[in-house]
Amino acid sequence: MVSALSMPGGARAVARCDVLREAPYSDIEGGLYRGYLTPAYAAAQEALTGWMEEAGMKVRRDAAANLIGRYEASRPDAPALMIASHLDSVRDGGAYDGPLGIMLGIECVAALNTKGRRFPFAIEVYAFGDEEGSRFPAAMLTSRAVAGTLERGALDIADGDGVTLAEAGVDLGAYLTARRARGEIFAYLEAHIEQGPVLEANGLAVGTVTGIAAQLRYAITLKGLAGHAGTSAMPLRRDPLPGAAQMVLAAEELAAADMSDAVATVGRIEALPGAPNVIPGEVRFTLDVRAGDVRRRNRVAEAILTRCQAIAAARALDLDVACIHDLPPSPCDEGLMELLDAAHESAGQRVFRLVSGAGHDAMNMGALCPTAMLFLRCRGGISHNPAEHVEPADAQVALAVMLGFLDRLGERHHAR
Amino acid sequence: MVSALSMPGGARAVARCDVLREAPYSDIEGGLYRGYLTPAYAAAQEALTGWMEEAGMKVRRDAAANLIGRYEASRPDAPALMIASHLDSVRDGGAYDGPLGIMLGIECVAALNTKGRRFPFAIEVYAFGDEEGSRFPAAMLTSRAVAGTLERGALDIADGDGVTLAEAGVDLGAYLTARRARGEIFAYLEAHIEQGPVLEANGLAVGTVTGIAAQLRYAITLKGLAGHAGTSAMPLRRDPLPGAAQMVLAAEELAAADMSDAVATVGRIEALPGAPNVIPGEVRFTLDVRAGDVRRRNRVAEAILTRCQAIAAARALDLDVACIHDLPPSPCDEGLMELLDAAHESAGQRVFRLVSGAGHDAMNMGALCPTAMLFLRCRGGISHNPAEHVEPADAQVALAVMLGFLDRLGERHHAR
Repeated sequence: MVSALSMPGGARAVARCDVLREAPYSDIEGGLYRGYLTPAYAAAQEALTGWMEEAGMKVRRDAAANLIGRYEASRPDAPALMIASHLDSVRDGGAYDGPLGIMLGIECVAALNTKGRRFPFAIEVYAFGDEEGSRFPAAMLTSRAVAGTLERGALDIADGDGVTLAEAGVDLGAYLTARRARGEIFAYLEAHIEQGPVLEANGLAVGTVTGIAAQLRYAITLKGLAGHAGTSAMPLRRDPLPGAAQMVLAAEELAAADMSDAVATVGRIEALPGAPNVIPGEVRFTLDVRAGDVRRRNRVAEAILTRCQAIAAARALDLDVACIHDLPPSPCDEGLMELLDAAHESAGQRVFRLVSGAGHDAMNMGALCPTAMLFLRCRGGISHNPAEHVEPADAQVALAVMLGFLDRLGERHHAR
Repeated sequence: MVSALSMPGGARAVARCDVLREAPYSDIEGGLYRGYLTPAYAAAQEALTGWMEEAGMKVRRDAAANLIGRYEASRPDAPALMIASHLDSVRDGGAYDGPLGIMLGIECVAALNTKGRRFPFAIEVYAFGDEEGSRFPAAMLTSRAVAGTLERGALDIADGDGVTLAEAGVDLGAYLTARRARGEIFAYLEAHIEQGPVLEANGLAVGTVTGIAAQLRYAITLKGLAGHAGTSAMPLRRDPLPGAAQMVLAAEELAAADMSDAVATVGRIEALPGAPNVIPGEVRFTLDVRAGDVRRRNRVAEAILTRCQAIAAARALDLDVACIHDLPPSPCDEGLMELLDAAHESAGQRVFRLVSGAGHDAMNMGALCPTAMLFLRCRGGISHNPAEHVEPADAQVALAVMLGFLDRLGERHHAR
């Protein structure tokens, strides 16, 4: 266990994540994997329980196996601000993706409790269960249960070893009672590592998240004419791969040309039949397009697909485009963002806003209440990787911003 | 069996290939696969034996299980012209890739025998065994044995079911005695379908092959920085896939710009880790470059690789290029090509020369004697496919050109 008294809260939050990166808090040796409802998950909840209680919270576990620490308000029956993140990890992941947001929530409460400060609202620190979807074939089950957007049918699933969710230790009949009522939770705050390079490139420790990006994903198939690599003269070919290459470059060029937060990625590509001495007859690739709002996202996606059609036509290739994923954006609440921005200024930080290209529990909680997110710089933008790294000093800045946010939220409540 | 008397020789050659496309001459139902030393191979040799004897040849089987029909010269102890192709097929292949060249050799002899014509040289029609390498993990074993370029150690192989070459029915100790002495075979002629679209695009039934192309094959790895597809702003990426896309386009552009017989093909490409929502960290692809001579081939390959280096440098990507295959060219004999060209003219055909991008038994026989090859148009350039198709009229043209070639070769012999 980490020496709790001598460290600044930000450093302690980071150090506690480091504790949880190894057995018994990891399900694998020599790396970190903590799946939902595994032995490592239970061990980590036990450690969290101790830290939450030490910070002055009352701890419970809900029907979806989320761990919750509650720090009461200055008055009875007050609604709660939820500060949350997830406890699970991807396989061979990093120590901070998820847990750091929980630890920072605990540090907020610890700092308040030390001074005996309470707000007219309670604070509930949630450690969500399965944001990553790394064990069961579903993601964000537990935050969807809390937000009330989960259907009972989504729970009839099993992990890769055939262990069902019920066998893993939750009562499926009770699962949806993890739902919180609208009046109980009036706002949501999540701190998370950025998992990207934008803050680092701007020399910033933290930034206000504007929302979760809208996302489009396409499966694209381009057909030409297969042939022997040695026997088809260049002018006689209908090779789909150079056509696909032009499309990859079009995605890169047109997303960059938008000069916005829009991004476009080809993450998977395959030439068929895929032999070195055969001109491909078919190329399949994916195209992922995201932006903070649907209009920008669609503008870029349409520009890319229009270009793809022109490329296919010019090369006499057959183009098939299937949209396989269309996720609406989940914008953060403007009022809460302004409070976060103001907290940046008080903490001596340059105000900076950025969109989250990745999904987070916040996108589900948006169905329940206004949400805010704070991103922390992570080195090289690297995440989902053991090399994931956060500077303790950056966590200290994040903690200061979160406490500033709480102060302002408290003032806003008093003013009402 | 095909009615032998009523058909022109070219049509009969095609019809006999059609006979051999089904059981018992195929090892599979509903398609053609004839492996080296399989039951279908034995059945096809039996059919060939009848056709060779009917054409006036004496038939034998050598130690490498090649079937050979010999038509004697006008004088004793004369050297022989070898007319050859292969009897085996790829899996689910076409009827003409290989057998058509054997059938046309038989038709040449049948035409001569009908008129009682003999040359000052003998004619030996060889049906080679395993050009394709579709059963054992080796290709062209039997023509290499005949040319004397095969090593004994290459025979210790087994097929996919674990059946060794010896168990399949050949005497490994005797195998290399299939070798022919230099004086015995003075020239080699192989007729084969083009397996490419060049003759069709030029509206020609046949063409003189200038040789087997020199071939280079590279395995190329391009490394950048993997990342989350949603969290990396476009200007901050080091995505290797757009770099690889530029390289694919460079290969296409620079091979075409050479305005020669040079071809360049990227047949396999893979982005790693290969998830739609992950910016690839690495891309691997193959590059195959061929041309009729080494200088042109190397000129194009070097231009492409130089461009690849510039692309990698401009994008700060790590480029690794490994040469995995370097096959020298096997040029056909200029004197024999001229005889073939002259035979084209006599047959009323436009003289046309083209390189063979694919390998053939001729490339091995070049070690034994001067070689010539005649390509026949195949529909759509399609081969290694059940849709492979040759027009009987084209086979008739090929037969006329081959007979004209024999006449001129006979005259040249008389003139000596």
